[in-house]
Amino acid sequence: MDIDARRKADPEHWKLASAIRVLAMDAVEAANSGHPGMPMGMADVATVLFRNHLKFDASAPNWFDRDRFVLSAGHGSMLIYALLHLTGYEQMSLEQIRNFRQWGAITAGHPEYGHVEGVETTTGPLGQGIATSVGMAMAEEAMRAEFGPELCDHRTWVIAGDGCLMEGISQEAVGLAGAQGLGRLIVLWDNNDITIDGRVSLSDRTDQLARFAASGWRVLSCDGHDAADIDRALTEAAQDDGRPVLVSCKTIIGFGAPTRADSAKAHGSPLGADEIAATRKAYGWDGVAFEIPEDIAADWRAIGAKGAGARKAWNARVDALTGDSRAEFSRRIGDDVNPQLAPAIAALKQQTVDAKPKVATRKASENVLEVLNPHMPENFGGSADLTGSNNTKTSDQGIFNAENRLGRYIHYGIREHGMAAAMNGIWLHGGFRPYGGTFMCFTDYARGAMRLSALMGLPVVYVMTHDSIGLGEDGPTHQPVEHLAICRATPNTLTLRPCDQIETAEAWEIALSQKSTPSVLALSRQNLPLLREEGSGENLTAKGAYVLREASAAPAVVLMATGSEVEIAVAAREALEQGGTPTRVVSVPSMELFRAQSADYRREVLPENSVRIAVEAAIRQPWDWLLLGERGREEKSDFVGMTGFGASAPAPTLYKEFGITPEAVVEKVRALL
Amino acid sequence: MDIDARRKADPEHWKLASAIRVLAMDAVEAANSGHPGMPMGMADVATVLFRNHLKFDASAPNWFDRDRFVLSAGHGSMLIYALLHLTGYEQMSLEQIRNFRQWGAITAGHPEYGHVEGVETTTGPLGQGIATSVGMAMAEEAMRAEFGPELCDHRTWVIAGDGCLMEGISQEAVGLAGAQGLGRLIVLWDNNDITIDGRVSLSDRTDQLARFAASGWRVLSCDGHDAADIDRALTEAAQDDGRPVLVSCKTIIGFGAPTRADSAKAHGSPLGADEIAATRKAYGWDGVAFEIPEDIAADWRAIGAKGAGARKAWNARVDALTGDSRAEFSRRIGDDVNPQLAPAIAALKQQTVDAKPKVATRKASENVLEVLNPHMPENFGGSADLTGSNNTKTSDQGIFNAENRLGRYIHYGIREHGMAAAMNGIWLHGGFRPYGGTFMCFTDYARGAMRLSALMGLPVVYVMTHDSIGLGEDGPTHQPVEHLAICRATPNTLTLRPCDQIETAEAWEIALSQKSTPSVLALSRQNLPLLREEGSGENLTAKGAYVLREASAAPAVVLMATGSEVEIAVAAREALEQGGTPTRVVSVPSMELFRAQSADYRREVLPENSVRIAVEAAIRQPWDWLLLGERGREEKSDFVGMTGFGASAPAPTLYKEFGITPEAVVEKVRALL
Repeated sequence: MDIDARRKADPEHWKLASAIRVLAMDAVEAANSGHPGMPMGMADVATVLFRNHLKFDASAPNWFDRDRFVLSAGHGSMLIYALLHLTGYEQMSLEQIRNFRQWGAITAGHPEYGHVEGVETTTGPLGQGIATSVGMAMAEEAMRAEFGPELCDHRTWVIAGDGCLMEGISQEAVGLAGAQGLGRLIVLWDNNDITIDGRVSLSDRTDQLARFAASGWRVLSCDGHDAADIDRALTEAAQDDGRPVLVSCKTIIGFGAPTRADSAKAHGSPLGADEIAATRKAYGWDGVAFEIPEDIAADWRAIGAKGAGARKAWNARVDALTGDSRAEFSRRIGDDVNPQLAPAIAALKQQTVDAKPKVATRKASENVLEVLNPHMPENFGGSADLTGSNNTKTSDQGIFNAENRLGRYIHYGIREHGMAAAMNGIWLHGGFRPYGGTFMCFTDYARGAMRLSALMGLPVVYVMTHDSIGLGEDGPTHQPVEHLAICRATPNTLTLRPCDQIETAEAWEIALSQKSTPSVLALSRQNLPLLREEGSGENLTAKGAYVLREASAAPAVVLMATGSEVEIAVAAREALEQGGTPTRVVSVPSMELFRAQSADYRREVLPENSVRIAVEAAIRQPWDWLLLGERGREEKSDFVGMTGFGASAPAPTLYKEFGITPEAVVEKVRALL
Repeated sequence: MDIDARRKADPEHWKLASAIRVLAMDAVEAANSGHPGMPMGMADVATVLFRNHLKFDASAPNWFDRDRFVLSAGHGSMLIYALLHLTGYEQMSLEQIRNFRQWGAITAGHPEYGHVEGVETTTGPLGQGIATSVGMAMAEEAMRAEFGPELCDHRTWVIAGDGCLMEGISQEAVGLAGAQGLGRLIVLWDNNDITIDGRVSLSDRTDQLARFAASGWRVLSCDGHDAADIDRALTEAAQDDGRPVLVSCKTIIGFGAPTRADSAKAHGSPLGADEIAATRKAYGWDGVAFEIPEDIAADWRAIGAKGAGARKAWNARVDALTGDSRAEFSRRIGDDVNPQLAPAIAALKQQTVDAKPKVATRKASENVLEVLNPHMPENFGGSADLTGSNNTKTSDQGIFNAENRLGRYIHYGIREHGMAAAMNGIWLHGGFRPYGGTFMCFTDYARGAMRLSALMGLPVVYVMTHDSIGLGEDGPTHQPVEHLAICRATPNTLTLRPCDQIETAEAWEIALSQKSTPSVLALSRQNLPLLREEGSGENLTAKGAYVLREASAAPAVVLMATGSEVEIAVAAREALEQGGTPTRVVSVPSMELFRAQSADYRREVLPENSVRIAVEAAIRQPWDWLLLGERGREEKSDFVGMTGFGASAPAPTLYKEFGITPEAVVEKVRALL
């Protein structure tokens, strides 16, 4: 069907969709930067979705029971900005659209969560949206099971492009969603056959429908420029039969642009004045840039308001709740910190001081979770197929799957990246605090989504065990050496490396109290003694660094260490003190938290004129500021740690061979004194 | 068929396979660590492969035209160690097997390339092997096309498990191999239905055969414990019909272990003495641990020797080559540095000084490659669907695909991780120097394979463009801030951030001269002026840091900068010098290379008593050693850069808003003076 025939076939739909297209063209042109082709190609699908299917109320962007809409192909950001503007989201003024991609505008190049209401998650790095949406859909199933469909009953709609589907993370999402039977998850594939380099066939010949079907998805197709056909497909997709749904929407990128449509040239740059004029003509669209005729604007606003009734009915149901269930539901969707967290941690710390357990911090972490989880129904755990190694599952947790939506533990499979993205989605949906485990070394696999946790400010918890050469025989492929540096280098990320069960409990208290920062718990495989002698006091881990063992006199030496190396520092201190050298041990569970302390406190912990040694079985890079800065001195400091990759051997051998021992510390101190 | 029936059905095969199984059990038991279940499950398949199909000669592990064998399920390392030992690889003595996972042994926990002949690539991080093998198979096609099947004519065989197939990187590999039509790539799937957490169905319900078929693979199945059926499937798989092949081998993990077979308990820990005794009985195997009866040992050695004839015939064909083709083939498979590299770079530098181009370093990189590629047929380029942005394709390069195996440019698709792993595979195969591009920010996606480049010591080149907030409007999802720190934190990785076309040419010269270190070229999106005034001299980039602009007198101030910020430092110097402050500018294209210089040189470049400011549009972490150490002082140094994520706006606005300007540098200097 040619463009004129389409225009005439459904003039009302055509006008609505054209409004999206012209706004996308105009905004990209004004910014002289951006991606017009995708919004132009998917405007028909998005129009049908928002008009006939998506449950939302533009006047209440954060209504909990709204359908979630995820633009996984985030470069098409003008699609969602146009939709938010047209349907009447208050924030999304025409001024914002005009300022697309400019400093201070909420209309960032790619949609950013937290900058703009109606954007459910940050997208742009391809594949993240589809993988995050899996977490949203799992959270929806879990909340529905827990609180009933009266309070939670919605779908997750995703628009994804070929780029999303080629990224490996998409397979992790597809596999996980299929296994979990997420029947309310619907992915609309912008099947336009174009990538930046040209035709998809340059790099892929995958039959996506067959691929998704192979992982247990229901697959549908439609003509992505035929409103009736789109509506048919979405209607069918919305029937939950226990399988997630892929809808192939056959579209033309840059639809209607005479010389650029159906070509990579429509993808990532402005069309130019001439092409825009010609395209507008093809659309039958008059007027100046950014102008939307009032009748079309009114129709769009009506679409934005149509969910108000459903929202009010939902509000009434919430208002009708009584007592505990109302309070709990409000707390949960408000993401409030659980009031039982602090007392539970305090009690556990006291018990720990009494029991003096010598356990790996991964086991200590399990001990903490065993205490917390029964009190914290919002904790939603999981592991990327290392449950017994990460110690992430507690005895009270059932398995979350299609048969048991009340389970609170997810077998994510061997999918670190998909897990991290799903955790982001679980938090974004609301109702839960997700945590998930893998080996510290495999933060490498999850990096893309971990960065988005930080960028979006989502307080998810990464339980990263086997955090050094201390994992031993598995060897350098599994031994992190640069990963603490990587986590510490990432903005808005709390890296916590506790040294014993008390610090582990404190680290969990910190992580589960965060409101806008993800945490990485770096935990040992090997057993560690209890080093904290007092458990009743404040959360010392929250200071980032503190004096764990005081020197017998004014400290000539300060030994700094984290996690499994604090034990080594304590042993070195013994030897130094016996040799008459007053030596302080400072435990540094979190550099980020220490940096946030007052300069006075930092100076108190790290006095200026002492010798400083840092001990960590990892590379030195993040330690330089504490060794050389904060009034440390190059000629009076040194580092005991790793300078390269590890090796395969039992852990005690590795520590000895790589020279991370009390003896090595003592030797370096003596060389400096 | 029960185990007795299988044993009787083919007693000779049974003995050969049992030898693998008992060695795996015994070695894991002796180490008290390791993974016995996978080698026990895949011993039958491996035996048939090595006995009847794999082209190799144990006496010549590095014979170029051998089939490549990749154990993607690297935790089953005892499978390959047993095979290497039994077939007579000299290095793999019984002593090494006995010392499995011990310090100094070549039998590391996971197979490590470079530690042991016969291990074609390091595996262990799941999915890497299958993705690396795609590169090997592409390199084989390319070498065969270039030098003919007389010199290059072999297959790539991979053993992969469910873990490999669940990892996202596997989809990137599957999609790329399917699109490329790699008919000599054969993946043997250890279809044992078990992951660490339990049955595969806990987390996946993917029909793998359908999934692979959807991406253009040929799919076969066999009973993985029936030698005849395995042989049938492998024979069929070895027929190249232009599609890569997946063979589902239905196996039982821990095959034969009475209480642990077909369970996650067979996966990752020693079986224990009792279970081993019972298993040996089931196998009909007598003798003490590690003992192989001489008849079986002899049969295995014969298998190891059967390829000698083919190898000698190949040697004769190579010897028969004459003149240039012989020299070129030898140079190429020897991975020698191209003798034309240095003169080509020298000429380009001289031209650059004359022409004074103001170009983005990504464009400068293209200019360099345009000069080099016609002289360097070993250069094998590509991009993860950002060809026009990464500027990675030169005009002489054809597209490498199923129709044109002489093309030297790969459209990798939107698959950063798969690209990086394939680059590793291309290098490992031999004959080529791969380089590949994406945005610097998406090193995140490629991290897993980039770490293996470093760990294996493969001099591949990552062309990472759009390396800072300088990319502008795409916003924080696309703006690296921590990624330079990440690359610099990774052992054995050269991070090169050139400031203009001269440094870019020098960086390429360095990268293409490496023998055992990968390089990351961090390149700007935005145009940069030519700052180097002299092009005839030595490669100054190779010093890591050098004086780019000398101070008018003894330097009171030293400004250090990299890449696009060197221009800012130079402008700040102008202002400071005009104000009477003698100011030196030090360009720091590579911290790793600077660290490798003599202390004298470093002191010369960074004098002790001057004020130091570093300027880089990224986080500070890697700069502390140059600001605070090497006799720098906290009270006389400062940093101008990023402290968090970027934002979406035009680049000049971002530099101004984030305070990375000459004025900000001058202000900080004045505050310190």
